[in-house]
Amino acid sequence: MKQSELFTKTRREAPSDEASKNAKLLIRGGFIHKEMSGVYSLLPLGLIVMEKIANVVREEMKNIGGQEVRLSAMQSRELWEKTDRWDDKKVDIWFKSDIKNGAQIGLGFTHEEPLTAIMREHVSSYKDLPKYIFQIQTKFRNEERAKSGILRGREFLMKDFYSFSRNEEEHKEFYEKAAKSYGRIFNRVGIGECTFRTFASGGVFSKFSDEFQTLSEVGEDVIFLDEKNKTAINSEVFTDETLSDLGKQKGDFVEKKSIEVGNIFSLGSRFSEPLGLKFKNENGAENVVIMGSYGIGIGRLMGTVAEILSDGLGLVWPKEISPFDLHLVSIGAEKSAKVKKQADELYEGLLENGVDVLYDDRDLRAGEKFADSDLLGIPTRVVISEKTMGDGKVEVKERIKKEALYMTEKELLETPHYRTC
Amino acid sequence: MKQSELFTKTRREAPSDEASKNAKLLIRGGFIHKEMSGVYSLLPLGLIVMEKIANVVREEMKNIGGQEVRLSAMQSRELWEKTDRWDDKKVDIWFKSDIKNGAQIGLGFTHEEPLTAIMREHVSSYKDLPKYIFQIQTKFRNEERAKSGILRGREFLMKDFYSFSRNEEEHKEFYEKAAKSYGRIFNRVGIGECTFRTFASGGVFSKFSDEFQTLSEVGEDVIFLDEKNKTAINSEVFTDETLSDLGKQKGDFVEKKSIEVGNIFSLGSRFSEPLGLKFKNENGAENVVIMGSYGIGIGRLMGTVAEILSDGLGLVWPKEISPFDLHLVSIGAEKSAKVKKQADELYEGLLENGVDVLYDDRDLRAGEKFADSDLLGIPTRVVISEKTMGDGKVEVKERIKKEALYMTEKELLETPHYRTC
Repeated sequence: MKQSELFTKTRREAPSDEASKNAKLLIRGGFIHKEMSGVYSLLPLGLIVMEKIANVVREEMKNIGGQEVRLSAMQSRELWEKTDRWDDKKVDIWFKSDIKNGAQIGLGFTHEEPLTAIMREHVSSYKDLPKYIFQIQTKFRNEERAKSGILRGREFLMKDFYSFSRNEEEHKEFYEKAAKSYGRIFNRVGIGECTFRTFASGGVFSKFSDEFQTLSEVGEDVIFLDEKNKTAINSEVFTDETLSDLGKQKGDFVEKKSIEVGNIFSLGSRFSEPLGLKFKNENGAENVVIMGSYGIGIGRLMGTVAEILSDGLGLVWPKEISPFDLHLVSIGAEKSAKVKKQADELYEGLLENGVDVLYDDRDLRAGEKFADSDLLGIPTRVVISEKTMGDGKVEVKERIKKEALYMTEKELLETPHYRTC
Repeated sequence: MKQSELFTKTRREAPSDEASKNAKLLIRGGFIHKEMSGVYSLLPLGLIVMEKIANVVREEMKNIGGQEVRLSAMQSRELWEKTDRWDDKKVDIWFKSDIKNGAQIGLGFTHEEPLTAIMREHVSSYKDLPKYIFQIQTKFRNEERAKSGILRGREFLMKDFYSFSRNEEEHKEFYEKAAKSYGRIFNRVGIGECTFRTFASGGVFSKFSDEFQTLSEVGEDVIFLDEKNKTAINSEVFTDETLSDLGKQKGDFVEKKSIEVGNIFSLGSRFSEPLGLKFKNENGAENVVIMGSYGIGIGRLMGTVAEILSDGLGLVWPKEISPFDLHLVSIGAEKSAKVKKQADELYEGLLENGVDVLYDDRDLRAGEKFADSDLLGIPTRVVISEKTMGDGKVEVKERIKKEALYMTEKELLETPHYRTC
């Protein structure tokens, strides 16, 4: 795409009421727009990144057998009363409203109840299980405070995955499979090295749940990390009892702040029992379905990447989720017809070679173009100017490196690293 | 995908409270689930169809220069008060709620206001225009009655597109381009022949707007159609004055019921004026941006296809938006290892050839399998049984035809019609 055609412009300053680094950078780059505290709209570059992250997650969820659905945001009172999660005294993050001449509705902050109700219509025998269902869908949560940019939104995109198993053993086996797939997801979006599977409080049906915590000073969570043994424990459960359960030594752990980028829970029969999700086993006896839930905030993941992979100059997208693979920048094309011609031709050549390229063809000073390029954070920048043309080469600079390389156009087009197809 | 693995099951009867044909068929086929009146969740097959329709629309919108965004559902009171569309007496379809300790918010039923506000930050000069922005996003409308299945929802997926032009002439030119692209969309999803561009009331800034109306007895609209001259007029404006404006004869028109599947509006400065969206022209003078809006309900489009292309046996998806291209059905595989082997191998062969295939590998009677296949409405069905194997052929039947063809597996795999890639 030509940058001159993109309707968004970068800006020097983020809104003065925006405290978080992730939102500041994303707003300045024209990725998102702040509608109100905790509510952001996605502009073209932001939508591309969000969709790429969603697609990484989608792929991994399908790889472990997930079938994709999209449930409604609007939720009925009757259903949630059955699990005792309707009352604002029990769940204090509902947004509620009224249907004209009708019932009160809530906006889903999670979807265990409606999916369990749906499964009742499709599961009756042990032959129908296990089943794994997920969605990537907008959640609404009436948060008291929302000042962490897109790390904690009142309206946000989330992947929620639910497992329906015949017994604890089958459940546990899948649970570990899901945990591994979470590891692959965090690796692919570029935060794998800073993200740790973390023991957290488990609720009614298991001693522990698992969180995936990414180290960051802006995180709202506190974990204790034994980096050598890759063991992490949420401070909520960092007790002598936990350490003894796990056979760990207190002295091996260091306190860290972190962002919870994912969590997985054993739900047991917490929802299947009150909602009547049962199946007949091989002997014709009726059993309750054993459930698990597996969440990743897609918006929070994007915010985490923006937060921890950025530098003083701007964003630094990992290739897999960058809005474009390559940022082609012409310098001085308004004065030199030769530069313009070569840059235009290289743009066409890159498109023909299947390279996903943003072409900064705007009539701006070199300094402004470079500053914008660093702010947008596309992994590779290619510069064409009188200077590079004199050498018969183009300048290629990785966003994460200080030094540029020089290569011919042919070499550039033949480098598989810059190609998406 | 193997049908035995799909978690949804077909059902003989739709819920007794469901009156509309589209929802009855879609629920029976396991495409959607009714959460409450006017609110449906998408199950795997329904999500695929919805996404395919969304992608057809997305492609055509990008072809006319549209840049995609995704705006928040949550809307702030201050913004909508500026255009006098916040008050429930002025707009009676808002769902409203309250942020904890904060302001009242509404759930967007359309997005002229927030997008115009965003454009203020990115448009300042005539060089920044024209621009075309669209989204495919969930709308909320507090409808008094919602009994037409997914034709009129309280929560539904919509494509809304907005044009920002420098003057009326530039606007008009694009408006016609958008109208043509709407024609392509309705052709591609299979309802082109039954859909007519229709003169409708125009509002403040133009005499007429344009609706796209699909003939159907279940439609809520009434149009007058001159089929010979492909002219249609909404009954709201079917007056002597309109006929005289258009130079048409009353006698050429026949009254028809129809579903409004799309509309395009000239908005003039209705939103840009109160929200201050201006630009400096070539002479440095400040002008107001001229806007247009272009809507298509993605959910309604799916409902319309389900409504008008179905028959007594079930759904009949056009190839471009079918959940799968081919339905492979084995008959008697539970008794014949040879049938099972051939069907399994053909399934693998089809996948390897890039055919998007649903394989009914379930252990059911032929009658049940055929009934399900007709209900699901995949365009082509391929049957393997002892009988077809005896002839060395497979049975190939188009969903819209009565007669089956017989061909070898090689011929099937080589027929480009059944391939997606």
